[in-house]
Amino acid sequence: MKLNLDQLKDINSKSLDLHQVELDILSQKLDKKGINAEDIIKDITELQVATPSWALGTGATRFGRFPGGGEPATLEEKIGDVGILKQLCGQTSSISLHIPWDVPDNAEDVKDLAASYGLRFDSMNSNTFMDDPRGLNTPKGLSYKYGSMCNSEEAIREQSIQHNIDVIEYGKRLGSDSLTVWLADGSNYPGQANFRRQFENVQNSLREIYKAMPEDWYMFTEHKPYEPNFYSTVNNDWGSNLLLAKGTGERCLCLVDLGHHLPNTNIEQVVSRVIMEKRLAGFHFNDSKYSDDDLTVGSLKPYQLFLIFNELVEYMKGDDKQANELAWMIDASHNTKDPMEDLLQSFDAIALAYGQALSIPRATLTEAQMNNDVAGGQEIIQDAYRTDVRPLVREARMRQGAAFSPLQAYRELGVRKELINQRGTRVAVTGL
Amino acid sequence: MKLNLDQLKDINSKSLDLHQVELDILSQKLDKKGINAEDIIKDITELQVATPSWALGTGATRFGRFPGGGEPATLEEKIGDVGILKQLCGQTSSISLHIPWDVPDNAEDVKDLAASYGLRFDSMNSNTFMDDPRGLNTPKGLSYKYGSMCNSEEAIREQSIQHNIDVIEYGKRLGSDSLTVWLADGSNYPGQANFRRQFENVQNSLREIYKAMPEDWYMFTEHKPYEPNFYSTVNNDWGSNLLLAKGTGERCLCLVDLGHHLPNTNIEQVVSRVIMEKRLAGFHFNDSKYSDDDLTVGSLKPYQLFLIFNELVEYMKGDDKQANELAWMIDASHNTKDPMEDLLQSFDAIALAYGQALSIPRATLTEAQMNNDVAGGQEIIQDAYRTDVRPLVREARMRQGAAFSPLQAYRELGVRKELINQRGTRVAVTGL
Amino acid sequence: MKLNLDQLKDINSKSLDLHQVELDILSQKLDKKGINAEDIIKDITELQVATPSWALGTGATRFGRFPGGGEPATLEEKIGDVGILKQLCGQTSSISLHIPWDVPDNAEDVKDLAASYGLRFDSMNSNTFMDDPRGLNTPKGLSYKYGSMCNSEEAIREQSIQHNIDVIEYGKRLGSDSLTVWLADGSNYPGQANFRRQFENVQNSLREIYKAMPEDWYMFTEHKPYEPNFYSTVNNDWGSNLLLAKGTGERCLCLVDLGHHLPNTNIEQVVSRVIMEKRLAGFHFNDSKYSDDDLTVGSLKPYQLFLIFNELVEYMKGDDKQANELAWMIDASHNTKDPMEDLLQSFDAIALAYGQALSIPRATLTEAQMNNDVAGGQEIIQDAYRTDVRPLVREARMRQGAAFSPLQAYRELGVRKELINQRGTRVAVTGL
Amino acid sequence: MKLNLDQLKDINSKSLDLHQVELDILSQKLDKKGINAEDIIKDITELQVATPSWALGTGATRFGRFPGGGEPATLEEKIGDVGILKQLCGQTSSISLHIPWDVPDNAEDVKDLAASYGLRFDSMNSNTFMDDPRGLNTPKGLSYKYGSMCNSEEAIREQSIQHNIDVIEYGKRLGSDSLTVWLADGSNYPGQANFRRQFENVQNSLREIYKAMPEDWYMFTEHKPYEPNFYSTVNNDWGSNLLLAKGTGERCLCLVDLGHHLPNTNIEQVVSRVIMEKRLAGFHFNDSKYSDDDLTVGSLKPYQLFLIFNELVEYMKGDDKQANELAWMIDASHNTKDPMEDLLQSFDAIALAYGQALSIPRATLTEAQMNNDVAGGQEIIQDAYRTDVRPLVREARMRQGAAFSPLQAYRELGVRKELINQRGTRVAVTGL
Repeated sequence: MKLNLDQLKDINSKSLDLHQVELDILSQKLDKKGINAEDIIKDITELQVATPSWALGTGATRFGRFPGGGEPATLEEKIGDVGILKQLCGQTSSISLHIPWDVPDNAEDVKDLAASYGLRFDSMNSNTFMDDPRGLNTPKGLSYKYGSMCNSEEAIREQSIQHNIDVIEYGKRLGSDSLTVWLADGSNYPGQANFRRQFENVQNSLREIYKAMPEDWYMFTEHKPYEPNFYSTVNNDWGSNLLLAKGTGERCLCLVDLGHHLPNTNIEQVVSRVIMEKRLAGFHFNDSKYSDDDLTVGSLKPYQLFLIFNELVEYMKGDDKQANELAWMIDASHNTKDPMEDLLQSFDAIALAYGQALSIPRATLTEAQMNNDVAGGQEIIQDAYRTDVRPLVREARMRQGAAFSPLQAYRELGVRKELINQRGTRVAVTGL
Repeated sequence: MKLNLDQLKDINSKSLDLHQVELDILSQKLDKKGINAEDIIKDITELQVATPSWALGTGATRFGRFPGGGEPATLEEKIGDVGILKQLCGQTSSISLHIPWDVPDNAEDVKDLAASYGLRFDSMNSNTFMDDPRGLNTPKGLSYKYGSMCNSEEAIREQSIQHNIDVIEYGKRLGSDSLTVWLADGSNYPGQANFRRQFENVQNSLREIYKAMPEDWYMFTEHKPYEPNFYSTVNNDWGSNLLLAKGTGERCLCLVDLGHHLPNTNIEQVVSRVIMEKRLAGFHFNDSKYSDDDLTVGSLKPYQLFLIFNELVEYMKGDDKQANELAWMIDASHNTKDPMEDLLQSFDAIALAYGQALSIPRATLTEAQMNNDVAGGQEIIQDAYRTDVRPLVREARMRQGAAFSPLQAYRELGVRKELINQRGTRVAVTGL
Repeated sequence: MKLNLDQLKDINSKSLDLHQVELDILSQKLDKKGINAEDIIKDITELQVATPSWALGTGATRFGRFPGGGEPATLEEKIGDVGILKQLCGQTSSISLHIPWDVPDNAEDVKDLAASYGLRFDSMNSNTFMDDPRGLNTPKGLSYKYGSMCNSEEAIREQSIQHNIDVIEYGKRLGSDSLTVWLADGSNYPGQANFRRQFENVQNSLREIYKAMPEDWYMFTEHKPYEPNFYSTVNNDWGSNLLLAKGTGERCLCLVDLGHHLPNTNIEQVVSRVIMEKRLAGFHFNDSKYSDDDLTVGSLKPYQLFLIFNELVEYMKGDDKQANELAWMIDASHNTKDPMEDLLQSFDAIALAYGQALSIPRATLTEAQMNNDVAGGQEIIQDAYRTDVRPLVREARMRQGAAFSPLQAYRELGVRKELINQRGTRVAVTGL
Repeated sequence: MKLNLDQLKDINSKSLDLHQVELDILSQKLDKKGINAEDIIKDITELQVATPSWALGTGATRFGRFPGGGEPATLEEKIGDVGILKQLCGQTSSISLHIPWDVPDNAEDVKDLAASYGLRFDSMNSNTFMDDPRGLNTPKGLSYKYGSMCNSEEAIREQSIQHNIDVIEYGKRLGSDSLTVWLADGSNYPGQANFRRQFENVQNSLREIYKAMPEDWYMFTEHKPYEPNFYSTVNNDWGSNLLLAKGTGERCLCLVDLGHHLPNTNIEQVVSRVIMEKRLAGFHFNDSKYSDDDLTVGSLKPYQLFLIFNELVEYMKGDDKQANELAWMIDASHNTKDPMEDLLQSFDAIALAYGQALSIPRATLTEAQMNNDVAGGQEIIQDAYRTDVRPLVREARMRQGAAFSPLQAYRELGVRKELINQRGTRVAVTGL
């Protein structure tokens, strides 16, 4: 299914009455701060965020899953859904696969199909946190019940290394150039495991996988403090993640998921630290109030999202070229929303936070900081946050032929209804 | 499967060399504090904790499930497993059913079977947090995706009331006398729902269910701050729970699950408050470090468990007769342990904490408190906690013909091996 | 010191170039949602927030205090500072006194002075959490080291009752009509105290104080989970606070301080609950990331502040007349900012959050909620939050003759410099 | 004041009736696990924990201080108090000074006095988190209001370096061989500071101080997530601390304070990580429920304390010789207890946790872990924890001529009464 662009244009046209004047005033206001609105529009356009293949179906908690209708049942259908998202918001042009949930049996065809939507393949995700019922992630037939790369049994460690190498192979055929490793390894009880031995096992396993990567690939490791293990995890925080990355190799970088932190963590500072150490891989965007809640980006803590983008903009506008290659991905779970609506809201929130962060006058901010002007520094930051930059985001979208308001267009176009017509109401997707 | 009691006795006999002398010394030490060891042994024996039917199989997280072998596939097999636990530790003599996971098709037979193991049926658990694939909890065929009793749609609220009434009916046939209501109702996003309207819907629904209960039944409501809803829940904390209970009726009481609290909550104080308001129903025992981790009782925060029992003992030894009818249940999830081993460790931890709390010299403690003797009060409490009361727990078990060390006996008797022989290695249980 | 209003007008005039067109466009946009901008301007003008007398000096942590210059040393000077704030932002027209820090020796004079600035006296704050070195809060000379109203010693409980009655007397003379009771009572160690006995002592003491209040006075009780006691507090959460208020009398209401909650608490839901029970007294505004950090309002979690105002607006626009008498106060600690700047930023954040909440189209929101439109409900809420309502706040201020940008005007007018000239650089204020 | 050892012996003799038989049985039980009780007694005896000079007076919160009587007013009196503690429990033989609170004007005399009590000087603590009223930590007269080593002003950074060098000089004269650097540096508001710039300033400052240390000295840096700064700190977590230590030099190590972690942090794993990286300096012992509560060691989370000692014992019994030089110190605040009683309870808790950890059969534990025996590993750990090792601790104390029960002896000997006789009831101590 592809959207009719004329229809989209028609829908847009109904919303434009105040747009141009809002954009003009905003441009004037930014100009007074020495900020060029056109530059921000351009930057917003260029920030392309990957859609994960597993995010197109209804998510679940351990307490059940309430599937919606018209969900994609195949990789091909998932690619089609990302194509629709791209048409609507213009902010996503790649898809991130999870093996074994989305094994691309015919890589060439899949690649061609994606290209027909203007999509390419982002980072490949391996899975050693569950035993695939078909055995697709357990080449030796061994269980990950007690961990994968941290396991005290060598054969299981070797199996998890092999699975990651298999995933790299799939990725090579699809044109991906990075491997994302999130592992659930850890322990549920004091006494169950030795922290150091587990860490060393994981470290050694990552080195083996790293050796098997092509020389232009990157490895991304992702930390998480708990769940599904509830006493300890091996890659538990940014400190451990940094040790693992440094211990693995130069092209091993740290991925930050916004929901993988202890209560009250200053995540923007974590981002600053990892940037300082030249090891930031990129982001798994979502939002949360309590735990790894995997909610829509920007739905609970929009100011935190803005402060994170404040760090990122400082990095991206600096001298380090690596900053241009950050991996952006959404990683949310849509338990009670239409997945496509959830993703559209998430892309919107990302663009807004980015636009706000781009409108901070950096030299003025630095001056306040050098003068220990506490209230002044806050004022500069909050002025940018309080400014409504939606006109810039809308303009960026419309210049690409996308929607003024993607969610509204999605509804007016009856996309979900059409997908249900095509696919039926109760299709099970792979994934969590 | 029933255990051979002679074999159990043999196993016990190997551990007894120091038992009597330890028991003697402990009794002398307690005696100095004015505590009678025999009384504690008797109290420990009488504290019977229900086993939930869903706790006999391997648990899961949203990231997967790693089933063990020999799991019970039917309600009858689950009853059998509880029978074994009873033989081993003597601390559990009832089973708590969850509908629709364990619908007792032939209530009389089930009741007789349980009786043959010396078991009766504890509180009945309804389920309106998922849509049963067979429709067993959705008599009107409506989904609980957006909540059950809180739902803005009247028909869904009525359906959830009806399901609870159905559960009461099952319970009546089994000889149960209480209904436990945990509902996942809440919201994932600001704006999704109106807190007050949701609360009132739940309150009104509970009243309807309450009316349908026999006059000697109790209703237990259980609060939880989040999961599976991640922004708000309707019955979110003890304050809300108390309002709901008082708004429902005299026989509506508050159940406390140890994992259902925000970080750093002083749970023993929550217990004190609910007791003070004469609304404590009882407990769902488990342990956790981060969230609703559902770990083995006493495995992470044994001192907190002891402090909770300190409150309970004060209540149970007081004048309020309701204190003798507290509902005790384990509610843990055994993701990486043999479920039977996990339960045996849990029963053990409960008995220990209870025994320690019973050994607090209450008059001495009160005196220190009345004198504002801060260090002294702590000293009295910690002396009780630091005392190894395992000889009392072992004695209590052995006098009932149970095991000196239940976990060790379970292993030496090869129970799991035998269950695998009987049931095979990959039997799926119902439940989470 | 009073500000020169002509000078203020001059400063304003420099910022007005885009103001009117921004205001017009915003009004049009609100109009489309069925919201009248003029109504919001009026409501913002009417929301008057009390300034606490202790907030005009530099705050401290237990690790030290770094006083700024020109701090007010007397109650008279503090009243003058509030007068300046009123002139600058038009949002504060009352002052809240803390006894023993600000004993008004000559009540009539103090009242007249305040009136000359257009100020009256808000809620009176008693203090039983420290021993005043002059003995002003310990009429019997007894220490509050082990608690005040919870104390096991009757004489200390009586003393704390007497102190509160003394505070009521001061308040009567000043024209106040409410007493705010925050007490530090609790315990540092398990074993130190009996939760229930402490609670009952506090409950009984509050009843005594309540009896001594004039019939048109209100009592406000304020909960806090920890600090300065670190194991338990007596009035620890909204549930306990509600029990105390209901147990005291009809005119005993619950005060909510934004920093007095456990990690991850859904504070807007707490507000909804207390409103539902008709016991909301009002607010102590501040912000925090970790604990009771007492930071500038809106500086860390502006979305939470907005969601709280969402609850309040629903209440204030409803039928309950009590909603018009909410007590609004700032209670922050300015450790590294100029206190006046901190307060101006706080007033600004409150007006913004209120304005945003007033711009939510309530009927549309309710419709989405009744239809279980999860994404739609979020969209409505976030649209209001993302709208820059600063033009309304500025307009409200300027119509009162206050500043377009109070912080900027404060700096341009050189207020602090002038205060330092008058008062010197190292004046110690009373308070924390 | 020195205690009369005969009197102590007399008091001990009243408690000995069951001691020997308890010790014998415990020894037999340990022996069965392959553990030698005599070895544990020896190890307990050798674990000497420093007493900080500021812990001998009543502590404070920002809400006030309730001084007790007989507090030491001079460094000489503080040394005397530590001498008493040493006599009572035999576990402390050094004192840790905080400059500027305890400037040793005549180092030789002070050193001799300490030696007369069998005491030496442990790590020296610098202070750049407050402005000493006498200017003792601000050699250039500049304020630390906006930070010390992180400050944007070079002169303030230089001043804080100079203060640390001054502290080293004092330490050299007293025979100390390490400098402990805890700094409050950070920010209260987003926008106030640049995370990276602050970090680099601190890093560079530490390098300067490091250069000024004698070659056999160590530098200890201590992390803390918040307070007195409430948005960010520079040395916020173990990850940042490790970066700073590695960036400073080989003899810069990481100190762990038990209260300086975010909610739910797995502190024992933090310890394991820092050990793994060969950067553990040692500990600041205390306990907490919510925040940096500075409560008596082992009073809230005794199991966590045991699990930390489990990591330490593994380290101390391993091959790394650095493990023998760990710096042990108590850092608690005694707000409502007699400071000496608080310290005695703390020493007791440390000895118990250490004794329990020493009684873990390590080879058996490793075997369970290698076999993925989850329940078995927990069982081994908990068996050690549940064992009452107080007979070993008492034996260790009595063999040194110290008290069977130090707290009880302290009370029976009337130590505080005697100190009040000597020093009066209201002596102010320096410190927090």
